[in-house]
Amino acid sequence: MKTAGEFAQRRERLREILTREHVDALLVVAPSNVRYLSGFTGSNGALLITNDRELLFTDPRYQTQAPRETECDVKISKKSLAESAIEWAKRLKVNRLAFERNRISYERHQELQKARGTIGLKGLSGLVEELRMVKSVAERETIRAAVLLNSEALELALKQLKPGMTEIDLAAEIEFRMRRLGADGPSFETIVASGDRSALPHAHPTVGEIHPDQLLLIDMGATVAGYASDMTRTLAVGSLNAKSKRIYRAVWESQLAAIDAIKPGVTANAVDQAARRVLRRSGLDKLFIHSTGHGLGLEIHEGPRLGKKVATKLEAGMVITVEPGVYVEGFGGVRIEDTVVVTASGHEVLTPTSKELRTL
Amino acid sequence: MKTAGEFAQRRERLREILTREHVDALLVVAPSNVRYLSGFTGSNGALLITNDRELLFTDPRYQTQAPRETECDVKISKKSLAESAIEWAKRLKVNRLAFERNRISYERHQELQKARGTIGLKGLSGLVEELRMVKSVAERETIRAAVLLNSEALELALKQLKPGMTEIDLAAEIEFRMRRLGADGPSFETIVASGDRSALPHAHPTVGEIHPDQLLLIDMGATVAGYASDMTRTLAVGSLNAKSKRIYRAVWESQLAAIDAIKPGVTANAVDQAARRVLRRSGLDKLFIHSTGHGLGLEIHEGPRLGKKVATKLEAGMVITVEPGVYVEGFGGVRIEDTVVVTASGHEVLTPTSKELRTL
Repeated sequence: MKTAGEFAQRRERLREILTREHVDALLVVAPSNVRYLSGFTGSNGALLITNDRELLFTDPRYQTQAPRETECDVKISKKSLAESAIEWAKRLKVNRLAFERNRISYERHQELQKARGTIGLKGLSGLVEELRMVKSVAERETIRAAVLLNSEALELALKQLKPGMTEIDLAAEIEFRMRRLGADGPSFETIVASGDRSALPHAHPTVGEIHPDQLLLIDMGATVAGYASDMTRTLAVGSLNAKSKRIYRAVWESQLAAIDAIKPGVTANAVDQAARRVLRRSGLDKLFIHSTGHGLGLEIHEGPRLGKKVATKLEAGMVITVEPGVYVEGFGGVRIEDTVVVTASGHEVLTPTSKELRTL
Repeated sequence: MKTAGEFAQRRERLREILTREHVDALLVVAPSNVRYLSGFTGSNGALLITNDRELLFTDPRYQTQAPRETECDVKISKKSLAESAIEWAKRLKVNRLAFERNRISYERHQELQKARGTIGLKGLSGLVEELRMVKSVAERETIRAAVLLNSEALELALKQLKPGMTEIDLAAEIEFRMRRLGADGPSFETIVASGDRSALPHAHPTVGEIHPDQLLLIDMGATVAGYASDMTRTLAVGSLNAKSKRIYRAVWESQLAAIDAIKPGVTANAVDQAARRVLRRSGLDKLFIHSTGHGLGLEIHEGPRLGKKVATKLEAGMVITVEPGVYVEGFGGVRIEDTVVVTASGHEVLTPTSKELRTL
C-alpha cells in the first residue's frame, strides 16, 4: 500500500512543520504517529526526527522486525526509550527538541527533563496528527478497502442470524468474518445491542438474546493494513412500533443532512449543526448526546472531530464518519453511521451498505 | 464475579495507602485502575477518591451505563475530566491530591497544575497497580475461567486446521472460538507465526500459508469478564529437524525450571534467572531476548514483571505468565507459556494444555 517514498515524504512535511515551530527535532512517542512516519508497527517504539536523521528506538523483541519495516536507523534499547532518545539527541547536537505534549506521559517527560542537558524542550500538540488528518491517495484507498470489507463482513454475519442467538454470538460472527476476509482485526470492540440496550451508545455485547420485534444496533469497524473503518446500522428484528420507526426516520434524515453539508472549506461544527438541526425539528436533539463524527485512519478516532465547538475547516482528503444517534433510556436507540471522504468537489460516501430500514 | 462489596474493599485498601503516602485524595485516570476501583468499564473515565467520597467522572455517552456499573457518584462532564475532577477536589476541600504519574499525560497534568488553586499535587506511581498485583479469590477464579476458555478455543481452532490455511485464517478461527465460548474478545492480537516467522516474538499473522515440516508458534489470550489469559504453544506441523527439536526441549526445560522456582518470598528476578540458567547450559541464553514473564489481570501486562532486575517478592495471590523463548533469525523460534498462580505453598499452573511437542 505504502512505499518507502511515502514515509520519506511524510517526514519531509513534518520537518517543514518543525521549522515553522522553531525546533530542530521532534521526539515521537504515540504508536500511531511512529507508524505513520516510519512504518514500524510494534507496540513499543519512539522516533527521533532531526533535520537530517531519523532514529527509531525499540526494545530487543523487535530487533528482527523493526529493520524489515522501516528505513529509519533502528536503535535497540534495553532501557526507557525516552532516555535513549534524548542521549542520541545530545550526541546529534539538537538544540531545541519538541515532544508530543498530549501523548507523552508525565513520567516520560520527567525523564526527558532530567536527562536533557542543555537541550531546550518544547511541548507541542498534534503536529503529526495535523499531517495525518489529510489522507494520501494510497491511504484513502486502504480505508476504502477497509470499509468495503467491513460491509461485506456484516452481510456474511447477518446470514448466520438465527432465533435465540445472543449479542455476543453475532459480534463473534461479525469479527470472524472480518478476519477471514483479511482484516487485521476489528477496529474497536464490535457493538451489538438489542432492544433497550441500543440506548447505550457504547454497549458491550451481552449473553442476552437478540429480541424479536425490537431495534438491533450494530456498530462495527474492520482494520485493514493498519487503517480503520467504522459503520453503524440499526436494524429491525421483526416488526417495530411506530415510535421506533419515527426515530429511525429522523436519525436517517439527520445523517443525510450532515453528509450533504460536507465539502472543502466548511467547518466541522457546521456539519455537526446540520445533523442537530434536523433532529431539533422532531424534538429529538436533546437525545443526541455525542458529536456527529470523527476522522479515522491509523486510529479509529482522529481529527477532525465533528463537534459543536470544532472550527477546523474540512479539506479534500480528510476521511470522516457521520453518525448521529438518538437514545431513549429504557426504550432503545438508533444510530446510523457511514465513512465519508471529503473530495475536491464535495464528498464521497464510502460505505456501500443500504440505510433503508432493514427488517430481519 | 465481583460484588459491590469487593469494590468498596479495594477503595478502603487504597485509602490506607493514601494515608501512608500523606495525601488525602487520589485522581485515578488509567482505565484499568478506574475499573478496578469502581466497576466502570467505559473508555473515558476519571475517579476521584477522597477520605469519604468517590466520584466517577465520565462523558455523556456513558450517562446510562455508568450508574449501572458503579456505586460511586457519577458526574457527567462535557469538558476535560481532569478539570472537572480538580474543581470537585477544591469543592471537597482536598489539601493534597495525588495523581498517577506514570499514567497521566503531560497535557492533563498541565491542566491540573493550572486549575489546582491551593491544592498540593503529588505524582505517585503504581499505587493502584500495587493493589492489583495480588488477586482476590474472585479475580483468580475469573482468570482461571479465562485460561480454561483460551485452551478450549485452541483445541477447537486446531480441529479446523487444513493444508493451505494461512496464519490469518488460523488466528481468525482462534479468536472466533474465543468469542463463541463467551470471551469478551482476545486479550491481545493473536500471534500465529509459521516457519522462520516464529523467530519474531511479536509477529502479526500474515496471508502466508502455514508451512509443513516447520515450527508453528501460537500466542493467544482470551479476556473473560475483563480479565486476561495468556498462553503460547509451539507446535510441529509435520516432521521437524533435529535443531528445532533440540531448541524445543531446551525451552521446555527452561520453562519448567522457572515454574519450579515460583513460591511466596522468591524474587521475580530469581524466577527469570532459573529460566536463563537452563538455556545457558545449551548455549541458547543469548537468544532469549525478553523477560521470563509478567503479571496479568485487567490488563495483559501487569506487575510483577519477571525481569532480570526486578526485585519484587512474589506473594500468594499473584498471577503471572512464565514464557521463556529462543529465537533464531532466519530459522525459527520456540516459546512456551503458561499462566501460573502463586499459592501459599508454592504455585499452581492454571493452563491445562499439554506441553509435549505436538505434531499436527
